[in-house]
Amino acid sequence: MNHCFSVAVLGATGAVGAEFLRLFETREFPIRSLRLLASERSAGKVLKFKGEDVTVQAATAAAFEGVDVAFFSAGASRALEFAPAALKAGALVVDNSSAFRMDPAVPLVVPEINLNAVGPTDRLIANPNCSAIIMLMAVAPLRKLGKIERVIVSTYQSASGGGASMMQELEEQTREVLAGQPARPNVLPHPYAFNLFSHNTPINQHGYNGEEWKVIEESRKILGMPELRINVTCVRVPVLRAHSQSITVEFVDHAPDLEEIRSVLAASPGVKVVDDRANNRFPTPLDASGNDDVLVGRIRRDVSHPSAISMFVSGDQLLKGAALNAVQVAEAVLARA
Amino acid sequence: MNHCFSVAVLGATGAVGAEFLRLFETREFPIRSLRLLASERSAGKVLKFKGEDVTVQAATAAAFEGVDVAFFSAGASRALEFAPAALKAGALVVDNSSAFRMDPAVPLVVPEINLNAVGPTDRLIANPNCSAIIMLMAVAPLRKLGKIERVIVSTYQSASGGGASMMQELEEQTREVLAGQPARPNVLPHPYAFNLFSHNTPINQHGYNGEEWKVIEESRKILGMPELRINVTCVRVPVLRAHSQSITVEFVDHAPDLEEIRSVLAASPGVKVVDDRANNRFPTPLDASGNDDVLVGRIRRDVSHPSAISMFVSGDQLLKGAALNAVQVAEAVLARA
Repeated sequence: MNHCFSVAVLGATGAVGAEFLRLFETREFPIRSLRLLASERSAGKVLKFKGEDVTVQAATAAAFEGVDVAFFSAGASRALEFAPAALKAGALVVDNSSAFRMDPAVPLVVPEINLNAVGPTDRLIANPNCSAIIMLMAVAPLRKLGKIERVIVSTYQSASGGGASMMQELEEQTREVLAGQPARPNVLPHPYAFNLFSHNTPINQHGYNGEEWKVIEESRKILGMPELRINVTCVRVPVLRAHSQSITVEFVDHAPDLEEIRSVLAASPGVKVVDDRANNRFPTPLDASGNDDVLVGRIRRDVSHPSAISMFVSGDQLLKGAALNAVQVAEAVLARA
Repeated sequence: MNHCFSVAVLGATGAVGAEFLRLFETREFPIRSLRLLASERSAGKVLKFKGEDVTVQAATAAAFEGVDVAFFSAGASRALEFAPAALKAGALVVDNSSAFRMDPAVPLVVPEINLNAVGPTDRLIANPNCSAIIMLMAVAPLRKLGKIERVIVSTYQSASGGGASMMQELEEQTREVLAGQPARPNVLPHPYAFNLFSHNTPINQHGYNGEEWKVIEESRKILGMPELRINVTCVRVPVLRAHSQSITVEFVDHAPDLEEIRSVLAASPGVKVVDDRANNRFPTPLDASGNDDVLVGRIRRDVSHPSAISMFVSGDQLLKGAALNAVQVAEAVLARA
């Protein structure tokens, strides 16, 4: 990348927005000018970038004029509202919402897995659901070792998936409960302190909630396996910012050798194998927090199936699950230009 | 039960011990005299039972003389040490540890499932692992609707499984972390506040930890299905006293109708169906805490398998997972005498 770009962040004041600013600095993203956009309510806030104050502006269509790269992290309705203006301005748009993910005309990309889905003229790219990204970082590399027949996933999802307000609710409610006060749910329908619950998205006619269905559909699209058999159970746990998952993968013929699996995963960019049986050291969300890598461990044969393996993963929901993946998408697309 | 019994509790000062005392009162367990036993360290402590002080005695072989019913909740080595004396004294012994569970001569019992495993002369009965009990309360009734082929379980286990000291560690460490201090693990090898981790029992040659292997072996014994295919992943989450589980059950021929499953579970003693899709109300560990019933919900067809269903359960680890099941075992055996 020899050029510097005019960059905009839509949703700059959220939990993912803060990670964008940090990643632009640590990854030396080639920024000429930075525009921070948010709702009317957040306009006027001042955020720090490279030690300097940047004032947040209210998002309008005109705010995207002259922007080369726009990162959207403001929900589906904002994405639908502002994508046309940003694209018309000529920007490369990476959208973190669900608005365009299943649009056949829009690539849905995890760069380590399917960067080839981005065509030469694509300017709008969808960033996948956080649980889908984290699961696929561990599962996709296994395709080198055998054809995947079926995936069964149970998640342990953190508060950050619901944004800064849900993280705050977890901390404040836990403080109140420890002080002997009753749990008073505000953002969430359920008490969250020392509790967990089935993901609070609506249940569809198949009995799956919205989060589970996203993981199912998006995984099929990203892997290019529209018939992939996949069962997902999404559960919110009282953890702040990294998602964990218990994953079983069934292969068509036979399960790959465990050492081959460890080698392939260890060689996969963005994956770190943490699988120390002797010392009982495996992935934890606390170890994954602030870590670019998705941690994978508990790699073992599934004793209940002749050609299946199980594993346990933890990945930072705000990084690889959101901001980091989006920045990597932009970096890769800009590098190809 | 027309008689009143001399009852002993070994491990009276622990988290499960406290539940025994509470259950004896609420269930009007027919007690003539109560002996509370614990380690030398806890001897002399005074506990309340029916409003009266009972002094804890150091456990010795002689302490079981004259005892009719002994509840053991003091770990495997204490169970091995004191079971002979209690049995010699003529007591019915219900042991909550793993010491005798896989002994072919000792029945391993969940009364709702396999009370028939108790023969007329059996005086030593093993109480199963808490995760096994809670899982089987939801899975065993489904045998009425079809032959089970395979079970896949991921657990969300509470601190209470590690006793009062682990519950205390979770609360105190969380308080410290919220005050900006670092997590200082004491009882556990990992930080526990706002974190989770693979169950901290040693990993065997199959790559499964001790807790997972107990669930596998004990489930086969309790169901009388030595060849049952079962995959278990046990994870400790920052919840105080109820275990949750994501369960997938594959049937040999075809999956039962979901309404039939709900009917069978709703009619099963000790099970409560909490499966309100419209209002997103499903089992949570907080709702299960202090509740005798195992809560079952998220009942749905597994979209990845033609003859499988998935569900989510929560059950109080100290009650049905430990003290309540043991008291129910004793009640059932004494009623048959």
